[in-house]
Amino acid sequence: MMGKEELYVGVDLGGTNIQSGLVKSDGTILARDKRKTKAEGGDAVVVERIAEAVAKLVKGADVDMGDVAAVGVGSPGAIDDTKGIVLTSPNLRWNNFPLAEVLGKHLKPPVVVDNDVNVGAWGEYIAGAGRELDIRDMLAVFVGTGVGGGLILNGELYRGHHRTAGEIGHTVLHANGPLGRRTLENFASRTAVVNLLRELIAANHPSVLAETAGPDLAQARSKVLKQAVEQGDALSIEVIRNAARYVGISIANVVTLLSLPAVVLGGGLTEALGQQFVDWVQEAYNEVVFPADLRQCQLLAGTLGDDAGLVGAALLARAKLAGMGGKEKKVAK
Amino acid sequence: MMGKEELYVGVDLGGTNIQSGLVKSDGTILARDKRKTKAEGGDAVVVERIAEAVAKLVKGADVDMGDVAAVGVGSPGAIDDTKGIVLTSPNLRWNNFPLAEVLGKHLKPPVVVDNDVNVGAWGEYIAGAGRELDIRDMLAVFVGTGVGGGLILNGELYRGHHRTAGEIGHTVLHANGPLGRRTLENFASRTAVVNLLRELIAANHPSVLAETAGPDLAQARSKVLKQAVEQGDALSIEVIRNAARYVGISIANVVTLLSLPAVVLGGGLTEALGQQFVDWVQEAYNEVVFPADLRQCQLLAGTLGDDAGLVGAALLARAKLAGMGGKEKKVAK
Repeated sequence: MMGKEELYVGVDLGGTNIQSGLVKSDGTILARDKRKTKAEGGDAVVVERIAEAVAKLVKGADVDMGDVAAVGVGSPGAIDDTKGIVLTSPNLRWNNFPLAEVLGKHLKPPVVVDNDVNVGAWGEYIAGAGRELDIRDMLAVFVGTGVGGGLILNGELYRGHHRTAGEIGHTVLHANGPLGRRTLENFASRTAVVNLLRELIAANHPSVLAETAGPDLAQARSKVLKQAVEQGDALSIEVIRNAARYVGISIANVVTLLSLPAVVLGGGLTEALGQQFVDWVQEAYNEVVFPADLRQCQLLAGTLGDDAGLVGAALLARAKLAGMGGKEKKVAK
Repeated sequence: MMGKEELYVGVDLGGTNIQSGLVKSDGTILARDKRKTKAEGGDAVVVERIAEAVAKLVKGADVDMGDVAAVGVGSPGAIDDTKGIVLTSPNLRWNNFPLAEVLGKHLKPPVVVDNDVNVGAWGEYIAGAGRELDIRDMLAVFVGTGVGGGLILNGELYRGHHRTAGEIGHTVLHANGPLGRRTLENFASRTAVVNLLRELIAANHPSVLAETAGPDLAQARSKVLKQAVEQGDALSIEVIRNAARYVGISIANVVTLLSLPAVVLGGGLTEALGQQFVDWVQEAYNEVVFPADLRQCQLLAGTLGDDAGLVGAALLARAKLAGMGGKEKKVAK
């Protein structure tokens, strides 16, 4: 039977922007929308803006709202994914906000809410770098402002007993380090990289960033860092390579523990630097993973880039509605 | 229907001793045997000695070999648990030895072989510290000559894609440490503890161990260390407490990643020091686990002690034969 195309809307809800898309079940994005979140306006404003984005996407693609099987939202912060409640999100200024319920009143399709990192991991697994791999276990690590992680185990998003699983950024890599100099995120986030570069440049280490990133490195976004590396800027290379080294050791710890077949790297810093960053990560990973056979675990750059969130939100909503992990869904593309 | 009692034999195969027991499905040990492994005699000798132990247990308990549903063996080294092959075991001097097949020729019941740390973890989960807990996810960490770990996820022993999962002893805690000063095992095993104590005593730090453990601390077994701690020996307390601290940080890394409800601590050092060791582990754990809510994860001392291996081997054989993870088995006790 030829059915109607299965359609989903995925929403990547950030503190600054709402990025959304009309997504087919194979992960293809048919239409996109990007608008400011306006979190300062309060929850009603944000919810209204999401609903407007969904309506615009549907209208623009000339489909009926009834054709949208579900709306998935990836939200920053701690999320109760079973009830769709944002427990706490400093970025959105929300506490115990029942997003799924409130947004559901504005929208006809069912609404599913999950953590932004989890949906990104799911996106890369189901429709990104993991798509063609015959695997059911995968770690995704996103290196950006912070460092987040998501785990797929046995073909499903793994949440753990207290549903907080995946927080690789908060694992300790310097057992004797003081607060702020202990965890992966302390050393490898873009924030940490920029802070160290700022410190070194202030101490008169030469770098093109002193020119390109402006005073106090205020413009040291991932793209500017990428340019510096491409120009052979020794200071940028050393600092970013060292950050990649920490990422590689942390990933090795997880693979040593979980014996995974694949790890996908995403986030602003990874996307900007691409394969160079992955190679640096791999180098440190190979040095410490145990047993050494696990060097065969594939370390891959994500393929969805900034779309991982919205694609993942859409397809996680699909998997949740179907009450299944998604591997079967994955092959039925 | 009143059936016959379900019986299993569990074998904890070590480089020095073979410890075995006739075990009921609830984990009760009806009879025990302990004999030398005699690995120096070659594989045929070891296999024969295991078969003799099984025969003696069955005969001594006045049951029929036909009443033994399965024989489970926990072996050191890298194991192919699907085929019962010991891939490599320095302790036993074996490479690619098909233990399940060869032992199976000597025994009527089916033979199941798995890694010694995995069976210990399963023992504590199903019949030890995890027995009364309503959990399906658990980490077990054994601190002894080395540091090993086993993971239960979703009510099953988690093995991972390459079937090497659980190697917490080889996770890195000092990203910038040289080889031999990087991993949990490098800092927290009894071997590491004794080496450090030896070094400090040689540098004239006072300790009762200089008397009680003999020259070169050759007698510094876990029990001697325990006595030193009980006598308030400052040096022993500092070194062991520091080892516990590393264990706590490593466990925090795993719980931060996997959001587990419970962790069980076993192995010689834990058993000797008991709750004091667990308390020291908990202290360091609480300091770094993320999010802080995960302090509610239960850190528990194992209850099976040295029997974890043989009980776990017996009951893992049971779970494998039933083709199930074991939670249903667990409650049907």
